[in-house]
Amino acid sequence: MNFITENFLLQSAEAVQLYHEFAKPMPIIDYHCHLSPKEVAEDRRFENLTQIWLAGDHYKWRAMRAAGVDEKYITGDASDWEKFQAWAETVPKTLRNPLYHWTHLELKRPFGITDKLLCPATAKEIWNECNAKLQTPEFSARGIMRQMNVKLVCTTDDPADDLRWHKQIAADKSFDIQVLPTFRPDKAVPDGASGISDDYKNYIVRLCESAEVVIKTPDDLLNVLKRRHDYFHENGCRLSDHGFGQFQFYFVHTPEERAATLTELLTTDEGCSHGDIASLILRYIAELDFQKNWTMQLHIGAIRNNNTRMFEKIGRDAGFDSIMDQTGLGNYLDMFFNDLDYRGILPQTIVYNLNPVYNELIATTLGNFQGDYSRSASLAQRPSKMQFGSGWWFLDQKDGMERQLNCLSNLGLLSQFAGMLTDSRSFLSYTRHEYFRRILCNLLGQDMHDELLPNDMNLVGKMVQDICYNNAENYFGFRSC
Amino acid sequence: MNFITENFLLQSAEAVQLYHEFAKPMPIIDYHCHLSPKEVAEDRRFENLTQIWLAGDHYKWRAMRAAGVDEKYITGDASDWEKFQAWAETVPKTLRNPLYHWTHLELKRPFGITDKLLCPATAKEIWNECNAKLQTPEFSARGIMRQMNVKLVCTTDDPADDLRWHKQIAADKSFDIQVLPTFRPDKAVPDGASGISDDYKNYIVRLCESAEVVIKTPDDLLNVLKRRHDYFHENGCRLSDHGFGQFQFYFVHTPEERAATLTELLTTDEGCSHGDIASLILRYIAELDFQKNWTMQLHIGAIRNNNTRMFEKIGRDAGFDSIMDQTGLGNYLDMFFNDLDYRGILPQTIVYNLNPVYNELIATTLGNFQGDYSRSASLAQRPSKMQFGSGWWFLDQKDGMERQLNCLSNLGLLSQFAGMLTDSRSFLSYTRHEYFRRILCNLLGQDMHDELLPNDMNLVGKMVQDICYNNAENYFGFRSC
Amino acid sequence: MNFITENFLLQSAEAVQLYHEFAKPMPIIDYHCHLSPKEVAEDRRFENLTQIWLAGDHYKWRAMRAAGVDEKYITGDASDWEKFQAWAETVPKTLRNPLYHWTHLELKRPFGITDKLLCPATAKEIWNECNAKLQTPEFSARGIMRQMNVKLVCTTDDPADDLRWHKQIAADKSFDIQVLPTFRPDKAVPDGASGISDDYKNYIVRLCESAEVVIKTPDDLLNVLKRRHDYFHENGCRLSDHGFGQFQFYFVHTPEERAATLTELLTTDEGCSHGDIASLILRYIAELDFQKNWTMQLHIGAIRNNNTRMFEKIGRDAGFDSIMDQTGLGNYLDMFFNDLDYRGILPQTIVYNLNPVYNELIATTLGNFQGDYSRSASLAQRPSKMQFGSGWWFLDQKDGMERQLNCLSNLGLLSQFAGMLTDSRSFLSYTRHEYFRRILCNLLGQDMHDELLPNDMNLVGKMVQDICYNNAENYFGFRSC
Repeated sequence: MNFITENFLLQSAEAVQLYHEFAKPMPIIDYHCHLSPKEVAEDRRFENLTQIWLAGDHYKWRAMRAAGVDEKYITGDASDWEKFQAWAETVPKTLRNPLYHWTHLELKRPFGITDKLLCPATAKEIWNECNAKLQTPEFSARGIMRQMNVKLVCTTDDPADDLRWHKQIAADKSFDIQVLPTFRPDKAVPDGASGISDDYKNYIVRLCESAEVVIKTPDDLLNVLKRRHDYFHENGCRLSDHGFGQFQFYFVHTPEERAATLTELLTTDEGCSHGDIASLILRYIAELDFQKNWTMQLHIGAIRNNNTRMFEKIGRDAGFDSIMDQTGLGNYLDMFFNDLDYRGILPQTIVYNLNPVYNELIATTLGNFQGDYSRSASLAQRPSKMQFGSGWWFLDQKDGMERQLNCLSNLGLLSQFAGMLTDSRSFLSYTRHEYFRRILCNLLGQDMHDELLPNDMNLVGKMVQDICYNNAENYFGFRSC
Repeated sequence: MNFITENFLLQSAEAVQLYHEFAKPMPIIDYHCHLSPKEVAEDRRFENLTQIWLAGDHYKWRAMRAAGVDEKYITGDASDWEKFQAWAETVPKTLRNPLYHWTHLELKRPFGITDKLLCPATAKEIWNECNAKLQTPEFSARGIMRQMNVKLVCTTDDPADDLRWHKQIAADKSFDIQVLPTFRPDKAVPDGASGISDDYKNYIVRLCESAEVVIKTPDDLLNVLKRRHDYFHENGCRLSDHGFGQFQFYFVHTPEERAATLTELLTTDEGCSHGDIASLILRYIAELDFQKNWTMQLHIGAIRNNNTRMFEKIGRDAGFDSIMDQTGLGNYLDMFFNDLDYRGILPQTIVYNLNPVYNELIATTLGNFQGDYSRSASLAQRPSKMQFGSGWWFLDQKDGMERQLNCLSNLGLLSQFAGMLTDSRSFLSYTRHEYFRRILCNLLGQDMHDELLPNDMNLVGKMVQDICYNNAENYFGFRSC
Repeated sequence: MNFITENFLLQSAEAVQLYHEFAKPMPIIDYHCHLSPKEVAEDRRFENLTQIWLAGDHYKWRAMRAAGVDEKYITGDASDWEKFQAWAETVPKTLRNPLYHWTHLELKRPFGITDKLLCPATAKEIWNECNAKLQTPEFSARGIMRQMNVKLVCTTDDPADDLRWHKQIAADKSFDIQVLPTFRPDKAVPDGASGISDDYKNYIVRLCESAEVVIKTPDDLLNVLKRRHDYFHENGCRLSDHGFGQFQFYFVHTPEERAATLTELLTTDEGCSHGDIASLILRYIAELDFQKNWTMQLHIGAIRNNNTRMFEKIGRDAGFDSIMDQTGLGNYLDMFFNDLDYRGILPQTIVYNLNPVYNELIATTLGNFQGDYSRSASLAQRPSKMQFGSGWWFLDQKDGMERQLNCLSNLGLLSQFAGMLTDSRSFLSYTRHEYFRRILCNLLGQDMHDELLPNDMNLVGKMVQDICYNNAENYFGFRSC
C-alpha cells in the first residue's frame, strides 16, 4: 500500500504547487538538535534499525507503553530484533498519532520503502531491507545527512564541554556540512525551587576546570561562564539554550549589590536566594548573547521525570515527562524581557512552548519587544527579533504545528518566522522538516484556494522559501562561522 | 423537514461506510451513568414527555434561562404541558448548541419522529405522539434500553447504599441487560478546603451502620470503606468514581503515622489536616481498586452550585455549575499517580476533564504511567491502562468530543481508548453513543479521505469497533460479574 | 488584483445567501468604541491617509516593529509620507495576519480601491487616490459614518467628562446618527495591587469638581459617582465599562461597615485594603447600572505597558500590551456575579475576554446567572441577560471570532448574542462589522451545507439578522435615549 504519496498532506492544487516548486528544493538548516557530534565526527554506521531508530527514542517508548508492551521489549534486555517486533506490533495502534506518519515518512526517506506499512506481517522484510542499507556508506551518519540535503546543524552542548568533536568535524575538509555547538548552561543555573545541591557544586568545579580558572573572587563564576561563552563563540557557536524543565520559568529583579555573594554560595547555603542567582546568571548570559549577536533560546513548559519508579530504573529522558501549567507566565516573561530591553541588552530570542494554551500569551508577549535590530542592513532580510518557536516536543505534530503557525499568523508575522528544527537525537528525523513544510504549504495553499490570501504564487511562494530556509540563514548569522 | 438523516455528521463516503458497517451494529456498554436502579427494577413508565425529558435535565434548564424563560416554567409550579411549551419555544433558539442535535436525535430514536423540528408550531403534535408511545411497553425504562441495544450499564452509588435494586434486577431472569453499581465515595472524603462538617459526621455514622460496624479504633473508617468495597464487588461493581466538584483536585503525601488520628476526627476537629485525610482515603480506595482489578474514575474541573439564590430555592445539580481553572493540576496529578505507582498499587484509571485547556496536560500526564498490566493475556486485548476519558458534561458535544479525540490521538493511542459513556440521568440519552460514533467515524473517514490514514477499511473499521465496544469489554472485566 | 471579492470569506452557497440577503442590509449599532466625540462634533476632515489610518493604530505599529521597521517611521519624527511608505513595505509581510484583510477591506470600503494590493509598488497611487478622497465631504468623520450605514455609536468616556461634544452632536439636527457616551470609571477604581497613588488622589479631586461636590462625609465618593452616573444617563448613556488591564480581575466580599472609611483613604493610606475599596466601587456602580437598566461591560485579560523603555518614550496604548494568564478567574467571576445576584442588583452584563483559553470558563460562568429580566415584554425580544462579548483586541480576527462564536454556540445560545462592536479609535474600522458578519454567515452557511443545521433559510437568516442588529437594538434599550 502506497501511503505517503507525493502529495501527502497537500489538500489543494495550490498547496501542491507551493510545496513542490518552493519548499522542497530548499536545503535544511537544523538550528537546534541533540545529535551526538562524536557520531558525526566518527561517521558512525548503525548495526541495525533498532539501534538507529528505537534506541533513545522516548516518543516510541511512550507509545509502546500505552499499547501495554512489557518494558523488557522497550528499554529492557530483549534482543534488538525482539524490540523491533514489539515496535512493529505497536505501529498499527498508533493510527492518528504523529508516530504513524513519522514512521512511514522515515521508511520512505532515506530507506525508500513506499509499498508497505509497518506491522507484524511486514516487520521481517523491513528489518532486513533497512539493515542491509544501513551497512552502505549512504546510510552512515554523514551519508544520511547528505542524502537529506542538510547544510548546517547545531548540537546542544554543556559549557564545560571541550568541543573536540566539533573541532574535528570543522577540520575535516572532506565533509562540508557545518556542525556547530550550542551553549546550554542549564547545569550552571541553580533552580529557585531546588536549592544548591552537591551535584550543582560538583558541576561548578568541573566548569571551572574547563575554563582553567580557580574561583577566588565573587565575580569569578560569571567570568568562568564568559570564558566558556567566548570559547564556544570561537568554535562557531551562535546560540544559547535554556531549559526550565524541572520547575517553572521565573524571573526576579536582582539587586546588583547581592551579586557579590554569588560565589560564596558554592561553599555555603547562606546569602541571597537561589532564585536571585538563577535570575542573575540567566540575565548575564543574555547579556553575553547580546554582545556577540547570538540568539537566546528558551524552552518553556515541561515537567520532567514524573515516574520515580522508572527514573530509578532507567534514568532521565526516558519518556516520563509531561506538559506543565504555570500561573503568571505572562508576567514573568514580560518582566524578564523588559529588564533586558531596558538595560539595552535584549538579544534576539526564540521561545519554544510546550503547553499549547500559552501560545497566544507568548505570541503577544514577544510582540512587546520587537523592533529594529542590527543584524542586517536590508529590511527585507530581517526576520522578527523575537521569535515564537516552532511546535515543540509534544506539539511537534500536525495539530501542534498548525496551532503555532496560526497563532503566529494572527498575533505576529508568519512571514518573518525562522522556521523548523528537529530537536531530535536521531539521524533519521530530517523528514520532520519535510513534514513541517508540507503542513505549512497546505495551510497557505488552502488559504489561497479559499481566497483568504491573494492568488499570487510568487508572493506566497517567496514567503514559503523564507520560512523554510532564508529567514534562518538571515536570522542566525552563521555566515560568519 | 427531515433534519437528522441517515448520514447525519458523516461528511465523506469513508465516514458513511465506517459508521454504517462498523460502528452502528455494536451494542452499548454504558459504563458510567446516573440512572436510577429503582426505575429499572420497577420498569418505570413515564406519564408524559416532560417527566422523562425535562425533569432533572439541567442542560435544558440552562438553555431556557439563557433564552430568558421565567423559572416558573423551568423548575417552578407550571404544569407539565406549560413546561413543555416553554421548552418548545426555546428549542429554535438553540441552533448550533448540542441540545438542538440531541433533541432531534432523541425524537428520532426511540420516538421515530423524523419529519418535524420541535418549535411552538409542532409542540402539540409531538407532545401527543410521544406521550402515546410512552404508554406502550416498548417505552418503559427497560423497553427503551432494549430498543437502544444496551448490553450493560453502570449506575453511580453511595458506599452506604444497600444495592437492593441492583440485586432485584440481577435476580430477575426476564431481563438480560446487566445493571451494575459504581462505588462513589465522595461523601466519605472530606474536602481539604471545607473542614469536617456535621453533614460529614452524620454521613460517617450512616456509612458505619451500612457496614454493621461501630468505629472504635483508628483504622476503622478505612475498614468500613473496605467492607463496603467488598460488598459492592460481590454485587458486580468494577469501578470507583470520584468527583472533585466543590474544590480543586489535589493530593498531598500523607505521613503514614498520621493516619492513626483519622477516626478521632469524626468527633473532634483536631489532628491532621483535612487535606491529609482526603488524600489518605483517596489513596486507600485506589489501593482497594488495584487489589480487585477495578477501574478508578476521576472527574476533574467543575465548580458547582455557584448561584446561592437559586441553590437556596431548588438545591444542587440544578444547572448552576461551571468550568474551573486550577493552578498546578499537572503537578498534583503527577504526584498522585506517582505515589500509587511507586507503591505498586496504581489501578487502571480514567480521568474525565471538564476544562478543555487541560486536555494536553492530562493526556501527557497519563502517558507517564502507562505500561503492561495483567487484565488480559493477549496484547491485542489490552486497552491503555491510563485512559483519558471522553468529553465530559459541558464538553459532551461535537467540538468537545473532537478536541478529546484529537488530543488523545496526538498524545496517546486513540485505538486503545475505552470509548463513550452517557453520564446521563435520563433513559433517552442513549443516542449520545450514536452521536459519539458518528463523530468518531467522521474524523477517521475524513482522515482516510484526505490520505492522512491508509485507505484500508478493515484496519480503520477494526479500530472503530474497538473504540465503540471491544475496548470497554476488554478493559473493565465485566465478564466476571 | 481583485482580492476582496463580493464573496470574500463565504465558502458555501448557503453562506453567500445568508450574507447578501440577511446580514449585509442591516445597519450598524457600534455599542463600544473609542472614537473622539469632538471629531464627530467638528466633523473632522483628515489631511492624509497616515492621519486617519496609521496615527494611533497600535495594531499596525506592532506589525511594523515585528517587521524590523525603525521606530522613527512608526511613532517618530518621519514625515507622514515616509510613515506610509514604511507601512506599505510592511503590508506584504502581514500575509495571514488580520491586518492584511482589514487593510484591503478598508481600502475597498470606503475608498473603493479593489484592483490593487498595498505594497511599495502601489503605495504612491494609493496614497494619492485616498488623500484626494479624504478632501471630499463624503470622507469627513460624519461622511464616513453615513457611508457605512451607522445608526448609533457609543464612545468611551471618563465620569469627570462634561460631555459637551455629545451634547453638541445631539443638538445638531443635521446629523441623525446617535453618538452616546459610556461611563468608564477605571480611574475611580484603585487597583488592589497598586495602592493609592497621587494620580488617583488628583483624579478624585477632579471628579468631585465635575460633580460640584466637596467630599466631607464617608459616603461622598459614592455619591459623587452616582451624580455623574445620573448625568451620563441624562445624556443618553446606557452602558458602563470597566477595564482591568494593569492587574487581574478580582472580587472580595466587602464588609459593609468598612465602607465607612472609604473617603478617608483619599487623604491617608490607612484603613481597609484597596481591594476592598475597588470591590465596593465596582459593586456600587453595578447597582447603579441595575437601577437604570444599563449594561455593565467587563474587559478581562490584558496586561498593559510592558515595555518600560518605550512607555517612557511614547506613553500608554502604544502597542506594548499582551494577553494575561490568571488563576482562579472562574471563582472571582462567580463570586462577583453571585454577590450581585443574591442582592438582587445584577445588571445585564457583557464580559469581553482577551485570553482565548478562558472562553469556555467564562461562557459557562455566565450561564450560572441567566434568567428572565424585565427589559422586554416579549420573550422573542430578550437576548441573553449575561453576554459573552465578541472576540476582543488580539482576538478580533477570523480565528478569535470563530472561537468565540463556537464557544458561545456550544455553551450558551448564539441566537441570543448582542453581536459585534469595533472597539476602535478610527473612523475606518466599520468594515470590522462586515468582517464579523461574513465570518458569522460563513459558519452558519457551512453548518447548513453540512446538514448540521436545518436547511431553512428563513430560520437561520432570522438568526443572522438578530445577531447583526436586532439583538443589540432589543438588549441595550437605546430607544429611550
